[in-house]
Amino acid sequence: MSTNHYDKRGVSAGKEEVHAAVKNLDAGLYPKAFSRIYPDFLGGDEAFCNLMSSDGSGTKSILAYLYWKETGDLSVWRNIAIDVMVMNLDDLLCVGATGPFLYTSIINRNKHLIPGEVIAALIGGAQDFIDKMQAYGIDIKYMGGETADLGDSVRTTTVDGSMTARMKREDLVITSQIQPGDVVVGLASFGQAAYEDAFNSGIGSNGLTSARHDILNKSYLSKYPESFDPATAQEVLYIGSKNLRDNLLGTELDFGKALLSPTKTYAPIIKALLESKKAKIHSMVHCTGGAQSKVLHFIDGLKIVKNNLFPCPALFKAIQEESGTSWYEMYKVFNMGHRMEIYLQKEDAQDVIDLATSFGVEAKIIGYVEAFDGKQVELHSPFGSFIYE
Amino acid sequence: MSTNHYDKRGVSAGKEEVHAAVKNLDAGLYPKAFSRIYPDFLGGDEAFCNLMSSDGSGTKSILAYLYWKETGDLSVWRNIAIDVMVMNLDDLLCVGATGPFLYTSIINRNKHLIPGEVIAALIGGAQDFIDKMQAYGIDIKYMGGETADLGDSVRTTTVDGSMTARMKREDLVITSQIQPGDVVVGLASFGQAAYEDAFNSGIGSNGLTSARHDILNKSYLSKYPESFDPATAQEVLYIGSKNLRDNLLGTELDFGKALLSPTKTYAPIIKALLESKKAKIHSMVHCTGGAQSKVLHFIDGLKIVKNNLFPCPALFKAIQEESGTSWYEMYKVFNMGHRMEIYLQKEDAQDVIDLATSFGVEAKIIGYVEAFDGKQVELHSPFGSFIYE
Repeated sequence: MSTNHYDKRGVSAGKEEVHAAVKNLDAGLYPKAFSRIYPDFLGGDEAFCNLMSSDGSGTKSILAYLYWKETGDLSVWRNIAIDVMVMNLDDLLCVGATGPFLYTSIINRNKHLIPGEVIAALIGGAQDFIDKMQAYGIDIKYMGGETADLGDSVRTTTVDGSMTARMKREDLVITSQIQPGDVVVGLASFGQAAYEDAFNSGIGSNGLTSARHDILNKSYLSKYPESFDPATAQEVLYIGSKNLRDNLLGTELDFGKALLSPTKTYAPIIKALLESKKAKIHSMVHCTGGAQSKVLHFIDGLKIVKNNLFPCPALFKAIQEESGTSWYEMYKVFNMGHRMEIYLQKEDAQDVIDLATSFGVEAKIIGYVEAFDGKQVELHSPFGSFIYE
Repeated sequence: MSTNHYDKRGVSAGKEEVHAAVKNLDAGLYPKAFSRIYPDFLGGDEAFCNLMSSDGSGTKSILAYLYWKETGDLSVWRNIAIDVMVMNLDDLLCVGATGPFLYTSIINRNKHLIPGEVIAALIGGAQDFIDKMQAYGIDIKYMGGETADLGDSVRTTTVDGSMTARMKREDLVITSQIQPGDVVVGLASFGQAAYEDAFNSGIGSNGLTSARHDILNKSYLSKYPESFDPATAQEVLYIGSKNLRDNLLGTELDFGKALLSPTKTYAPIIKALLESKKAKIHSMVHCTGGAQSKVLHFIDGLKIVKNNLFPCPALFKAIQEESGTSWYEMYKVFNMGHRMEIYLQKEDAQDVIDLATSFGVEAKIIGYVEAFDGKQVELHSPFGSFIYE
């Protein structure tokens, strides 16, 4: 994927404009924390703090739309509801929040194209995920939300959400605690966790505009003009070779279901980990925008060497193959095998690995931390070694 | 406006589908309250409760887009930021919340059309409004948010937000306290309050899809194809006679600026009112979706007679004239002069009127409450008398 493709598709590789626009906003108590942490405005207690996260499923909802139109399968919308919740939830986990979480959803739809049954699947899917998490001690409260009919603004639908938490400051986990000598335990993004209903391809909710256009073929261009910006150059729209129902080699999933695997939460694992081993954890990083280079936002004077990554899941291999994206870029856009990193001392790593495994999530030491003049991620993959800084 | 026009434009007069989809969600502690009220999940204190509101500027952001494209005036985006905040804030005021409020913004944009300077105006406008409210003791904390590049999902931009509050249950104001014999004090939506920078047309953030298409002329159809759903029948798109820069008769505003007046908050008034007269207030109703019939959601065994409304502001008159919408419908879609109602005993009304006046907001008794078999709003306007039930 060239930068040119990003530009033409109207997506950002970085978020420079957004960072410039928000530079004057209050950065909170710990500007280097994974999520912004504010004083306890809601309780006025110096021992506590407040958190608020907002995120959405991005253009993954367009894939759900296409798959649902092709198959009539409403369950993909339930997955989108999970995507939105987990993109918020797992960000908040990284600073040590384990709930209760207040959740609200914001759905904007084109009523001509998105009927009530889709809204019902989005809201029911969110509630089902909440019920499932409850069994693992993750307490999420669905506080309602907004569903608006905005066909003049929205081609199909956008699905977003926001989550609020209040927690003790002594329970915080701050990324600035990463130290030379630490190891990095990665938690696999693929596979089927004990708390999941199906095998998960490993995809999250990042990079889906590129993945959709790079994998799917031109038939979607004429059949679903509502699924892209008509101002975009056709040379970057639906330029792959696949149909949604084509099998993803090496899996039992079709491409559609693989692209629509819900973002896997690590909440049950992180909650258990914080309860038993909180003092051992130096930091946690949710590899979303920026993917394997995400940790760069939170370090200084350190190099992270990732030399023992998980095998690249089949879906990411297929995206690379279809798109010809450089592997350097692939690791910067997609999680490529693990979406959660835990930084801690080497002697504490096995406990984390055992705990994750007990939840059916593969885990292993994927790298280590060195002192460095500046900041850098040095990544060794089967497809080459890459430097991010 | 016929129901047919709503359908063709993909907007809902009611929200039946949405209500059906959310019917199984937890309705909170007081299902008849104006906003949902939940136990104090965040603090675990039985004397407290939690609130969370989500709302957006709807298609008002399209008007901002058109006006900005035509004039280069970025300030209209700052108004949109206020719209989003006030739609949430004034809903929460109605149950007695006066802050602190945690606020997060969710902006989805088409990066091809919405550059960084617009994002900066949206975020800066929100922060400026927060700073202004601070001077009146309204404490809003901007906790960051999400800005996503979703050109394949969003034609121009959507701007939404969410607000969280925690308050003492003893401070709650519940709509079920409305009683026969109460009067209704209306707070004007038009004019310039002490805390506003300019004259306000009175428009809120409801009914703007209709207002835009009914007022603006066909020139916008060819010039701004990104401003509407191409699947919509052209017979309902931009069918008015006006340009954005045409003067709105009887005002110093052009139609664009009149349509883009920010939703006027009543927060400084309501806060002062709750501090001095809380025990006197039976209920408050924010006349958003449903407008002058909104109170029907919260009453039973009562009739609200509205027989002394404010004069209809110029902008609403112009919308009616351009669209030929029935006056019955106009009062159900637009606030038509007051967007906040306070229900209380007649002898307490003058204090509220005096307080509002001291903030530069006109107020008066606009009606009264009677016992009734069922529920009804009986509205007497200069344009006829109407029954809503």
